[in-house]
Amino acid sequence: MDIFEDPQSTREEILAAAYRALCAHGYADLTMERIGEEFEKSVSLVYHHYDGKDDLLLACLEFMLENYRVDTDTGPPSDPSAAMEAVCDRLLLVDAPPDVQQFVRALIELRGQAPHNRAYRDYFTRSDAFFQDRIETIVETGVEQGVFRDADPERTAGMIHTVLSGAFFRYATVEGDDWLADVREELRRYTEQTLYLPDDDAP
Amino acid sequence: MDIFEDPQSTREEILAAAYRALCAHGYADLTMERIGEEFEKSVSLVYHHYDGKDDLLLACLEFMLENYRVDTDTGPPSDPSAAMEAVCDRLLLVDAPPDVQQFVRALIELRGQAPHNRAYRDYFTRSDAFFQDRIETIVETGVEQGVFRDADPERTAGMIHTVLSGAFFRYATVEGDDWLADVREELRRYTEQTLYLPDDDAP
Repeated sequence: MDIFEDPQSTREEILAAAYRALCAHGYADLTMERIGEEFEKSVSLVYHHYDGKDDLLLACLEFMLENYRVDTDTGPPSDPSAAMEAVCDRLLLVDAPPDVQQFVRALIELRGQAPHNRAYRDYFTRSDAFFQDRIETIVETGVEQGVFRDADPERTAGMIHTVLSGAFFRYATVEGDDWLADVREELRRYTEQTLYLPDDDAP
Repeated sequence: MDIFEDPQSTREEILAAAYRALCAHGYADLTMERIGEEFEKSVSLVYHHYDGKDDLLLACLEFMLENYRVDTDTGPPSDPSAAMEAVCDRLLLVDAPPDVQQFVRALIELRGQAPHNRAYRDYFTRSDAFFQDRIETIVETGVEQGVFRDADPERTAGMIHTVLSGAFFRYATVEGDDWLADVREELRRYTEQTLYLPDDDAP
């Protein structure tokens, strides 16, 4: 991921090393030693700053979410249709560069810890709500501006966010992605029927 | 899960022990020793039959899928609308008994191993296709019988299966399930618009 490419501090260097080690070894085989191997300075520095791999990976997740938050305009979008299109285009993983695909796999793997690990569950509860809220704001703004139909923002956002979550989950855990173009197409049809006014549908 | 409640052989007793240990400890903290503790006979028998926890958990997954396959009529449903309703009702996890909720969490945790573990990925590629195919058959049959609109079975099934996968994934990894009723409602609206003929919509 871009944000790990130019670390600005020792802390960011350690987080970048943890991310690289996670992508290389996967969660189950990840150890502090392996993270240390990816870190170019002293391994003991990693131990000094973090209690263990989960502590470090959670810091990594927080760092990524915080960066995303700062980069993303979370206010009402000026063009709700374009913003919604951009949300749905997150499904176009097939054409995504390898580092983004690897990122999705790493995220899904960490989220797979959540059922039994409270700290991961707390994190993913927050990040899940953040992404659903973002979609909700887009729907809400579109309805208020009169560019969208009078849809229920919470319900519509819940559906769209669930489709995206399901697609990422399937994508990271099965071989083959033929189904992905179908889901993108159906999601487009769903948003058209649910959000776009008949006038907008006309060619 | 029901299928583990009345083991018919030593093999099934071991699989049931593995399932109980997985639910109790989670994947990351699961060891062959802990599985052995759940198994009432000799621990060495567990080692004798299985190479390690992944070997055993994969056997567990196969056993569950095989049981589901046998219990489920995979042919064309006699009542496609009722069959589709039953598929969508899988989302009603909130009202599910605790053992089903625990089962969903265990499955999501194991599937979280798939990004870095080829054997899990192979398994979930097969099970994912099995569930999507099942939905596809329902849509196809409904279209052929004239009870459904002329929808694209593969695309519609891909969408519905992705919504279900996303809902299970979110459910197992975040706190709170207020969003689930919304998604159930939106999925109902989606299937009505996509599959049900206007005549069927009339009260």
